[in-house]
Amino acid sequence: MSELRLHPDRLLPAEPSVRGIARELYATVAQAPIVSPHGHVDARLLLDDEPFADPASLFVTPDHYVTRMLHAVGVRLHALGVRRLDGSGEPADPRAVWRVFCEHWTTFAGTASRHWLTDALVNVFGVTAIPSAQTADSLYDELAARLAEEAFRPRALYARFGVDVLATTDDPCSDLSAHRALRDDPSWHGRVVPTFRPDAYLEAGVPGWTARLDRLATASGIDTTSYDGFVAALEDRRRFFVANGATATDHGHVDAAIIPLAHAEARGLFIDARAGVITASGATALRRHLLFEMARMSCEDGLAMAIHPGVSRAHHTPTFEGYGPDTGHDIPVATEFTSSLRPMLERFGTTAGFRLIVFTVDETTWSREIAPLAGFYPSVFVGAPWWFLDTPGAMRRFREAVTDSAGFFKTAGFVDDTRAFCSIPARHDVARRVDAGYLASLVAEHRLDETEAADILQAIVGRLPREAFHL
Amino acid sequence: MSELRLHPDRLLPAEPSVRGIARELYATVAQAPIVSPHGHVDARLLLDDEPFADPASLFVTPDHYVTRMLHAVGVRLHALGVRRLDGSGEPADPRAVWRVFCEHWTTFAGTASRHWLTDALVNVFGVTAIPSAQTADSLYDELAARLAEEAFRPRALYARFGVDVLATTDDPCSDLSAHRALRDDPSWHGRVVPTFRPDAYLEAGVPGWTARLDRLATASGIDTTSYDGFVAALEDRRRFFVANGATATDHGHVDAAIIPLAHAEARGLFIDARAGVITASGATALRRHLLFEMARMSCEDGLAMAIHPGVSRAHHTPTFEGYGPDTGHDIPVATEFTSSLRPMLERFGTTAGFRLIVFTVDETTWSREIAPLAGFYPSVFVGAPWWFLDTPGAMRRFREAVTDSAGFFKTAGFVDDTRAFCSIPARHDVARRVDAGYLASLVAEHRLDETEAADILQAIVGRLPREAFHL
Amino acid sequence: MSELRLHPDRLLPAEPSVRGIARELYATVAQAPIVSPHGHVDARLLLDDEPFADPASLFVTPDHYVTRMLHAVGVRLHALGVRRLDGSGEPADPRAVWRVFCEHWTTFAGTASRHWLTDALVNVFGVTAIPSAQTADSLYDELAARLAEEAFRPRALYARFGVDVLATTDDPCSDLSAHRALRDDPSWHGRVVPTFRPDAYLEAGVPGWTARLDRLATASGIDTTSYDGFVAALEDRRRFFVANGATATDHGHVDAAIIPLAHAEARGLFIDARAGVITASGATALRRHLLFEMARMSCEDGLAMAIHPGVSRAHHTPTFEGYGPDTGHDIPVATEFTSSLRPMLERFGTTAGFRLIVFTVDETTWSREIAPLAGFYPSVFVGAPWWFLDTPGAMRRFREAVTDSAGFFKTAGFVDDTRAFCSIPARHDVARRVDAGYLASLVAEHRLDETEAADILQAIVGRLPREAFHL
Repeated sequence: MSELRLHPDRLLPAEPSVRGIARELYATVAQAPIVSPHGHVDARLLLDDEPFADPASLFVTPDHYVTRMLHAVGVRLHALGVRRLDGSGEPADPRAVWRVFCEHWTTFAGTASRHWLTDALVNVFGVTAIPSAQTADSLYDELAARLAEEAFRPRALYARFGVDVLATTDDPCSDLSAHRALRDDPSWHGRVVPTFRPDAYLEAGVPGWTARLDRLATASGIDTTSYDGFVAALEDRRRFFVANGATATDHGHVDAAIIPLAHAEARGLFIDARAGVITASGATALRRHLLFEMARMSCEDGLAMAIHPGVSRAHHTPTFEGYGPDTGHDIPVATEFTSSLRPMLERFGTTAGFRLIVFTVDETTWSREIAPLAGFYPSVFVGAPWWFLDTPGAMRRFREAVTDSAGFFKTAGFVDDTRAFCSIPARHDVARRVDAGYLASLVAEHRLDETEAADILQAIVGRLPREAFHL
Repeated sequence: MSELRLHPDRLLPAEPSVRGIARELYATVAQAPIVSPHGHVDARLLLDDEPFADPASLFVTPDHYVTRMLHAVGVRLHALGVRRLDGSGEPADPRAVWRVFCEHWTTFAGTASRHWLTDALVNVFGVTAIPSAQTADSLYDELAARLAEEAFRPRALYARFGVDVLATTDDPCSDLSAHRALRDDPSWHGRVVPTFRPDAYLEAGVPGWTARLDRLATASGIDTTSYDGFVAALEDRRRFFVANGATATDHGHVDAAIIPLAHAEARGLFIDARAGVITASGATALRRHLLFEMARMSCEDGLAMAIHPGVSRAHHTPTFEGYGPDTGHDIPVATEFTSSLRPMLERFGTTAGFRLIVFTVDETTWSREIAPLAGFYPSVFVGAPWWFLDTPGAMRRFREAVTDSAGFFKTAGFVDDTRAFCSIPARHDVARRVDAGYLASLVAEHRLDETEAADILQAIVGRLPREAFHL
Repeated sequence: MSELRLHPDRLLPAEPSVRGIARELYATVAQAPIVSPHGHVDARLLLDDEPFADPASLFVTPDHYVTRMLHAVGVRLHALGVRRLDGSGEPADPRAVWRVFCEHWTTFAGTASRHWLTDALVNVFGVTAIPSAQTADSLYDELAARLAEEAFRPRALYARFGVDVLATTDDPCSDLSAHRALRDDPSWHGRVVPTFRPDAYLEAGVPGWTARLDRLATASGIDTTSYDGFVAALEDRRRFFVANGATATDHGHVDAAIIPLAHAEARGLFIDARAGVITASGATALRRHLLFEMARMSCEDGLAMAIHPGVSRAHHTPTFEGYGPDTGHDIPVATEFTSSLRPMLERFGTTAGFRLIVFTVDETTWSREIAPLAGFYPSVFVGAPWWFLDTPGAMRRFREAVTDSAGFFKTAGFVDDTRAFCSIPARHDVARRVDAGYLASLVAEHRLDETEAADILQAIVGRLPREAFHL
């Protein structure tokens, strides 16, 4: 291979008759607008519309999918531009970071990151050189030149990517000023909505919780020293988010349990937490109860509730203490849904309009728990394959595991969940290709008619994520 | 697609050379008699041989695979003809039920139910219109007309389906009068055998247990107020079942544990249970012990023992209280077999003639636990993919997970497990097609000779289920 | 099929375009030297270079993959030549054992054992008759005649198989005399290295532990009655192994936990253990701590650390008591890695040069835990599919589950793990074929360039296992 390229049939099944059908199906959605109900792009990026700084800080440093793989083969995080929390160490030279990345291009062979990176380099930037030690510098210069152009600013790319709506992930205390400024900007024609992500406020055992509640009091104007005040403040912030376009909340805790407590018990635990004397099990019980409260509020204020449990965050304490969270060492754990969600579903599972979108990184739960739950409860939707599973192989296994028991119409479309702005179209494109391939297999095995398959693919790309997330 | 149709190559692998082999293999068993060792058809259906009432009560209302999917997209159970336990609410009009079902035909796209329904409509009833709001009424009329014909009565269908033997699922107190009457009916040429299903008698913690034991005393003529009497009554009823053609018992509890207690301990728990003071953990221990007793009895009376643990029954209490059990909200849980079955297998695992057929809805256990167990213990057979897993995709995964470690000859054929009489041939046909496809893949990859593959498929369809279930 | 044969395209994907690529890729490694970093061949076999005794003791009796399958269909172990521990019973006639095996040839259809056996019979021995009752005797004679030839002695086969390096599995007290004698034998041109396997020394709760420590004291010349002495003796024996060519340690316990204790606590448990009063939970805690010590020592002495947890050993006590361990009834259990390995990885996960190779028989952990761990920690490598999973199907699932998150370069090549000397080339050949097939699929789906795929396959077969195991 002498140059970087993207084959038009990439990721479609190899068997010619299936590929032919897949190609036809894919073509019907290849240019469809992107609905992105969950991700980590900062609204300010689009508000400010500044040029991206350099290739390293665009493609390498902030993308923990990329940095973890390089770390795994022996590259230190600071050599990738990740800064120590204490500010020690020289900032890495972006060109040097880019060179390290290019030298390790082969490390990514077979991974989803390789595909996204290739797609962004070729499709977004028109690059044709394969990253390597030899090409690193010229590639850097080529990319840097592009980044200086108007056409490669965030808003121009947003338009070029065909994004219809983009959801961000936001702290409950956020004033959503960037969202509001964007909305009020007559030159802005896109749609960026906030998402209410209260994780840190629901974990009373985590350091900083009290200070966070103080900020919540300031943001809401409601005293949070009492349990009832705290709950009222959360309700208030949710209303504020709704008023500013939010359609969903987002929750990532280590397990999926949502279990109500009696009011007095919850209040007692809250008092302990405020006094700094709550036990680990007390904090867990309070968090599970507060998620129940989140479900209750969703039934009232209409925010869809997305949960993605089952990750042991910051697995390597020395790295966490040195570099902070989201630095590549969050590791999945086995997750239980059937019993964990039951107390909440007993109460709200059939409530009209309620939406619970369930994500997992434990793929054993798709056929065993999540699809059966979504195959009965009107409120439950199966979240897309996510994080370690947002890969061509896992997306295929997702459809195979879920469709049998839950069909297509209780799935919730694709989420890109990305911090890497330029990977957004690539990620959605992969999902469309894999889904087209899966549907083509059903057609080729005479399990589905091609017309119906095309309708389903259309729904997966547009209608289903809009409905599940109230977009 | 302008009409409902069944392609002759449906469900066979798409690759032409594999499909060619699969087609040849499938042809050798396509017309083979149906051996159905586990299902939920009522023997009285065949005894009475009355016409089926209407399309809705044949295809929709009693089939919780169908009702759960419609419920999941927002249809209320009573709109599907499911009656409230308290008798409240008007009975739904069958034609209206059928219409709701037809309007939601697309909901089933990609599911196993879609395939079974299509097969029954096309193959059994000769229907060619695709269900929809437009076709619902004419389809209803067409099906109702057929149901009035002699050729669509249960016995005629039994013969037309080519059923060789059909096992029902029966309460230990049943007088098996329908089975006996059938056996004594000179105009009946089929074979329907009862299966001993004592679940409710082994769960001392469940309301109604004491009354159930009183009925057991009446049925057996043995006092069940003492532990020894209770065990003797169970032995007596098993003998009665054996005398009336039973070849197997059937057990579905939440876990797979089978653990003996000392006699005094079992008796103590039984006394507590009879007195209504048994704890939840005591009831669990007693149930696990009673299953050990079931295994012991199987070694003595020759009934094969089928277990299918790992389902959390009646997950949504409001639905259970409103509509009763088996209404679509039984959800699987992770299941452990290696340690759970060990105490029983230590004792009976190598007992000559003993058969333990192990079913699961936790597919992770196939390669990890069940196939290795069946690959050592002469008594252990791998049960077919069942319930949420009796789908083309899961059946394929089953063979891939099990064959490597246990080959083909420790699997126990297919069980349709159905309440939907007209789906019996479709379900067995799907299994034959998928197995033919899997074997064809092995042939195409030169892992098996086609002659040997054909012999194996023949065994899967006939000899293996007969041997495993002593049929 | 009238004769036993091996198709040149066996195990390659059926689709012609993928097969074409796979064939080309496979050809580049088909004759590559065999790197075997883990197995159970006895070094003395190659030192003594005696002819193998007979077909039964070569192919049947010592291979618990084979005996368990025959046991599962009702053959008694003593009929397969397995001797009772108490010496009772006549030794089985090897010809009779061989006959039983041949009669059950069809039992192995679809299993990995069938493939290995066929490969050994055809490729190693040039046999063409399909084993059966009819051919058993003539096959026996044919094989026996070959075994008497010089060309079928162990060293000749070692050379013919193209083995480059073979690791054995050894007791810490072993004097490694066979390894040393081989090394000093000028007529020996191969490489056989020992592996330090201390399992029994780390399990204080197992009968015989004290006697084992006494032997360790003798072997090391270090008093093992104190905790510090015990640890020093282990360090000493590791140094002895290193001095005699060892590059790795090997650990198989029921779970994956590696958790340090304070020195005083460890010493206290050791004292209890020495006094015979340690509890089961104490013994577990001590074992987990000693594995932490093993990791520490690996960081110091450079031995790679291979763990393969998650098997319930000797599941059927009557068989264990009658015939001993490794007789086919070791059954996998669900295994947890994320939390279990954390305490050790917090400490040594980023230590330069440390290697932890993680094997599992719980395939759910590949995508969920092991690949994510290997995708961050420089020390963690993903072990090959092993034992119940060293089959064509599971090897394919392994690549699909692991590559997405960890790529290829954090996997550790293939281990044959075999006691069956003649199956070594077949086992490595299967892995090469399956990996070629997987890589060909990526090429056919335009996810990888064929040149890069060939480089990866080359690395999988040679560089990666050498690097991971320091060979």
